[in-house]
Amino acid sequence: MKLRITLILSLIFSTVSLKAQDSLMLRKIYDEELVSGQCYGNLHYLCKSIGPRLSGSANAQKAVEWGKKLMESYGFDHVFLQEVMVPHWVRGAKEAGVIIDGKKRISVPIAALGMSVATPKGGIAANVIEVRSLKELDSLGESAIKGKIVFFNRPFDSRFIETLQAYGTAGDQRNAGPAAAAKYGAVGVIVRSLTETLDNYPHTGATRYAPDGIKVPAAAISTKAADRLSNLLRKRNRPLIKFYFKQNCQTLPDALSYNVVGELRGSENPNKYITVGGHLDSWDLAEGAHDDGTGVMQSVEALRIFKALGYHPKNTIRAVFFMNEENGDRGGIKYAELAAQNNETHLAAIESDLGGFTPRGFGFSGASPDMIKNINLQWKKLLEPYGPDRLIAGGGGSDIGPLKDKTPGVVLIGYLPDSQRYFDVHHTPNDVFENVNKRELELGAASMAALVYLIDQHGFN
Amino acid sequence: MKLRITLILSLIFSTVSLKAQDSLMLRKIYDEELVSGQCYGNLHYLCKSIGPRLSGSANAQKAVEWGKKLMESYGFDHVFLQEVMVPHWVRGAKEAGVIIDGKKRISVPIAALGMSVATPKGGIAANVIEVRSLKELDSLGESAIKGKIVFFNRPFDSRFIETLQAYGTAGDQRNAGPAAAAKYGAVGVIVRSLTETLDNYPHTGATRYAPDGIKVPAAAISTKAADRLSNLLRKRNRPLIKFYFKQNCQTLPDALSYNVVGELRGSENPNKYITVGGHLDSWDLAEGAHDDGTGVMQSVEALRIFKALGYHPKNTIRAVFFMNEENGDRGGIKYAELAAQNNETHLAAIESDLGGFTPRGFGFSGASPDMIKNINLQWKKLLEPYGPDRLIAGGGGSDIGPLKDKTPGVVLIGYLPDSQRYFDVHHTPNDVFENVNKRELELGAASMAALVYLIDQHGFN
Repeated sequence: MKLRITLILSLIFSTVSLKAQDSLMLRKIYDEELVSGQCYGNLHYLCKSIGPRLSGSANAQKAVEWGKKLMESYGFDHVFLQEVMVPHWVRGAKEAGVIIDGKKRISVPIAALGMSVATPKGGIAANVIEVRSLKELDSLGESAIKGKIVFFNRPFDSRFIETLQAYGTAGDQRNAGPAAAAKYGAVGVIVRSLTETLDNYPHTGATRYAPDGIKVPAAAISTKAADRLSNLLRKRNRPLIKFYFKQNCQTLPDALSYNVVGELRGSENPNKYITVGGHLDSWDLAEGAHDDGTGVMQSVEALRIFKALGYHPKNTIRAVFFMNEENGDRGGIKYAELAAQNNETHLAAIESDLGGFTPRGFGFSGASPDMIKNINLQWKKLLEPYGPDRLIAGGGGSDIGPLKDKTPGVVLIGYLPDSQRYFDVHHTPNDVFENVNKRELELGAASMAALVYLIDQHGFN
Repeated sequence: MKLRITLILSLIFSTVSLKAQDSLMLRKIYDEELVSGQCYGNLHYLCKSIGPRLSGSANAQKAVEWGKKLMESYGFDHVFLQEVMVPHWVRGAKEAGVIIDGKKRISVPIAALGMSVATPKGGIAANVIEVRSLKELDSLGESAIKGKIVFFNRPFDSRFIETLQAYGTAGDQRNAGPAAAAKYGAVGVIVRSLTETLDNYPHTGATRYAPDGIKVPAAAISTKAADRLSNLLRKRNRPLIKFYFKQNCQTLPDALSYNVVGELRGSENPNKYITVGGHLDSWDLAEGAHDDGTGVMQSVEALRIFKALGYHPKNTIRAVFFMNEENGDRGGIKYAELAAQNNETHLAAIESDLGGFTPRGFGFSGASPDMIKNINLQWKKLLEPYGPDRLIAGGGGSDIGPLKDKTPGVVLIGYLPDSQRYFDVHHTPNDVFENVNKRELELGAASMAALVYLIDQHGFN
């Protein structure tokens, strides 16, 4: 009986002291970042001295070279590039979009969707058919659609508390709408920008054609212009309303590019990996500040924090700047392929690709319900003082997704910042450094480092 | 035994159905606000058509009149004004601040602190003594300080996760620094702006002189200029460095102003009150968007939501636009005095005065530890899907504070939005409508309505 009590007491005390040690380490991580953080300055360089960096562009190559140098400057144990062939899409000259209302011409802001084909040189003009969903498109069929420009105009559902859910449910219009409309003989597609905000910016983003399907030109139109067009279609005799647009984007041959990888080698399990990453490529319309400059700068910062604190991880920690998330995911696919080829064991991968906003939590995929329960039991209280304490099932990221099949057992984790402002800037000219808050960015970097530390120390069991 | 089981079961089921009912009502509140919210539009009017509204100003009077009309337009049961005499301080012509470095003159951004006296007409020039705290000032004493300009330059401690804590610990320099320096014979005081951000804006705010003490002119200096001055003082022979400033602010006789109050009368307890409020006055340098246009617009919105949903509260719910929080708290004091005079029973008062950012929680003062535990047990899960689920001890607001003594038993509640961006704009020309996010504002309004509903239905027991 006595022994048992002693045992229980010693277990309690060891748990307490372990918790106290973790708590102390987390405090050190946040202090280091909030006092001496470098990610805001690094993000400034990436946004202002390099700028937009779409896959295959000269800027993307500059970002790769600079990213590698940055990691080397921090003295990581190993810094290297992973070759990957990426799509090379270029927008070309600025697009033109015009609502034709009888004799009236109303210029409106549009931007070609990424991977879209060009219009004929002189542009396309056609009657417009507005639909709210792919289902509605199907119900209308070829007779209604042939020869027309399909206008996908389902707005964000503002009732979702997390804007990502609104994006998720509206996103099929952009991703799959053009391919679906082409099947019914549409000559072009315009898609309401994926944002709740009423603004004058087209929000670009990739669309996916069917591999052997017909490709029709597709563009995003600003939400304000979408409302205007929709109102005109409702009020006027429809045949009077036409839409004209012109874009000369094109897809060039695939280009050689790279993932950038930096490692702190594990002292106990050098062949077990924890990845923390974001994507280095960005859309061409702005600086890719929140999408995803913040994610890559936070990832390298997590490792910098460990170096600064003299923390020697048990497992190998990798910061990865993935290439080509926006229009192909090739970097993420390559990373997973190489992981499998090299027989690497991946414990976890964390991706930050939802903007550099205040931390709220992490979403876990590949973790059992018991694991999630345990994570909450063990870590929620530790993270609570800093914000990222919503530890929920589901989540990950486009770049780390391919690890799921290639490195079985990996836990995929999405960093969850506050989501309210993301779609104000997402894929628009507003996605610039000035719209990133220094402390929000830093708290995110520290949160990612904190989670990496906890996983490194305790795993998931 | 059977009866007992039945009883227990019926208790369980009634609890479940009560929770389900609350859950449903909260969903309705957020839906109403996110789909049909009016507070963003109202805030636009307040910021753009009225603008800055310091106590005693013509704009403050305009805001009172408009606020009353707004409440009347929503058909509240009773809308009225409460007379209150307020300080009437005016800034006068734009201030001038100059670092004198030998023969070099460096203009720097300053702004008189609210309630400060003017400099002599030609300004003041004097040697500068930099201190980091009131304690350091005391240790230096009269011999070091007499005839000099005291420069309070302790920065925000960036290690605090909540910026409000950093504000709290740095704030004594602005509030009490000028009065303390005057005691030692200082001829003027400049105070590092209360923000972590390195920027070029002086952040104004009130200072408090001792009632019978000597009053010396005091101004805020931008953080960048503060760093520059501090560096010069470190590098150069101190006697070479002087500071010159000129301001012609003055305090006019007290002016008549008003709190604006709107009520939904309680169906069961008309003489029991739940107050939800913010302050209508703002600093003169900008539009008072986050401070505290968001708070007043959210408060009236909470009642508008109830009207829209046809919710008839058990207790009387009041939206209050308090006057004069920034430089006197007279509106809050008057409100509490009248509450006592009229024998009103106040159950709770909620204040939103920390900016219109994403909801994180509420802080409760005057609630026992058991009460806080119970609130968490009963309401945390209900609020979690929407964000404001940190229900913690401590909190309130300057305007509702005076209720504590005047209406014993009242629970004072501070609305806690995310705090990271508040001191970027606080008391600066940047506190404008454009820096408020529509959804963040609306989520806050709905959160306040949600808490009012829960208190109205269940009290705190």
